[in-house]
Amino acid sequence: MTTDTLTVGRHFPRTVRASDIGWKALAVNLSDLAAMGAQPRWFTLALSLPSADSQWLRGFLNGLKCLAAEHAVALIGGDTTRARELSVTITAMGLLSPGKAMRRDTARQGDLICVTGPIGDAALALWRLKRGLPEQGIEARALRKKLDRPQPQVKAGRVLARFGAAGIDISDGLAADLGHVLEASGVGGKIEASSLPVSPAFQALSPNSRTALRLQLHGGDDYELCVCLRPDDFSGAVRVLRKIGVSLHAIGQVKGKRGLVLQTDRRTEPLIAMGFNHFAAGRR
Amino acid sequence: MTTDTLTVGRHFPRTVRASDIGWKALAVNLSDLAAMGAQPRWFTLALSLPSADSQWLRGFLNGLKCLAAEHAVALIGGDTTRARELSVTITAMGLLSPGKAMRRDTARQGDLICVTGPIGDAALALWRLKRGLPEQGIEARALRKKLDRPQPQVKAGRVLARFGAAGIDISDGLAADLGHVLEASGVGGKIEASSLPVSPAFQALSPNSRTALRLQLHGGDDYELCVCLRPDDFSGAVRVLRKIGVSLHAIGQVKGKRGLVLQTDRRTEPLIAMGFNHFAAGRR
Repeated sequence: MTTDTLTVGRHFPRTVRASDIGWKALAVNLSDLAAMGAQPRWFTLALSLPSADSQWLRGFLNGLKCLAAEHAVALIGGDTTRARELSVTITAMGLLSPGKAMRRDTARQGDLICVTGPIGDAALALWRLKRGLPEQGIEARALRKKLDRPQPQVKAGRVLARFGAAGIDISDGLAADLGHVLEASGVGGKIEASSLPVSPAFQALSPNSRTALRLQLHGGDDYELCVCLRPDDFSGAVRVLRKIGVSLHAIGQVKGKRGLVLQTDRRTEPLIAMGFNHFAAGRR
Repeated sequence: MTTDTLTVGRHFPRTVRASDIGWKALAVNLSDLAAMGAQPRWFTLALSLPSADSQWLRGFLNGLKCLAAEHAVALIGGDTTRARELSVTITAMGLLSPGKAMRRDTARQGDLICVTGPIGDAALALWRLKRGLPEQGIEARALRKKLDRPQPQVKAGRVLARFGAAGIDISDGLAADLGHVLEASGVGGKIEASSLPVSPAFQALSPNSRTALRLQLHGGDDYELCVCLRPDDFSGAVRVLRKIGVSLHAIGQVKGKRGLVLQTDRRTEPLIAMGFNHFAAGRR
């Protein structure tokens, strides 16, 4: 069971389409279930709206239902209230066998640190959006889709849980989210900058290598999974995931008692999490 | 399972204490479980705040924990986000045996319409608050407590579910909420104005009989239960409820195919629900 709130202007720009908000509000919750290796089943919806705009509501529900249908999760209740700002709180529930949850506190020395899919697309889309860069073109649209309609890695989560991985979904940024796993497990880790998987769209549109690396490490909203896996299990997991269309990339290793370091071609440097803090100056 | 959002300025006045908001946010959800005859067990908390005020948060959590402890429900997850307005969404889960839920659609011809506890106290407190009437004095404080710290009728709900009652909790007003039960059951009903139970505080402070009746019929926030019960079960239910300190009052009878009528000493009149509509002109 998990709960997540999306608020306009904070979790999504004010210009985002209603259907994309509906999709994403559910997606971030299913992603949390995916990060535990659970099979999503039901959700409730608490919607706060400035006004009852039926066209907006139709769009919102369309996006929501579209993702709900893909994952066969049922809306079983909710509440609608009026508020000055739009916000959406979803509570999602899933099933898993007792003792079989993917956890954050079970990473062990020597584990490979891996991520599903490419990292940084959503952050680059947001970076471009803030700068008013063009949204036409196949690459720009691909990035934007990753920001607006993230695909929760539900099936991958179930596979990785069966392999006994420790893991999390990347919502606040790779450094911050991986940091949570390492800290909960009482271990440290090292990741290789050159191993971070990038999409063709990211490669085509990233402004420069320094910004690209920053977006990959600290940008959120990817909703890929980051897991720590026994090295012996890596190729098996890659094989099973490939069958369901998901790529798994080793990006580093669990090492030492604490802290996360980044290896670039020039040097090794400590990697400080810069995840989103709602009560610090807004990043978005 | 149930979910409910409270928003500042809509579900509670801006001057309400943090601890009372914490209490009430959980209370309204436990009341929804009570209305199904369920035993509350867990809840999640999604909190949207304009700023991270630690003193406010401490107060809020104190109120929340206080009620959670009374009902032995556990906070099992949540999300905290920044927003322009304060709002609290709680999703609460409870247990009941399959097929044993108290429902809205099972009221039958001839059932007695009953309510737990006195009706109208919270509405009178809000009415007085809006007019800036004094809040000192034992009666004014008793009314205010009913508004700020409603007691969800969890035990009473379980008892009434065992008696096979149809029911609901009174959150939007007796007429509106009873109306939902009658409509869902495809029946009509008649209630007696003179049978509506009032508290000593209500009796002492209600301004005139017309306003008093309006507050009792259409004021919300009581969080008492309104149930439809076989006449043969009434005295048994009263006896069991008395043991747990809850009074049950027969206020009318299920009668006819649709609609709700009110019998006063002068006449019989149709009773139109005037419950809270978030998207109509604000009542509060």
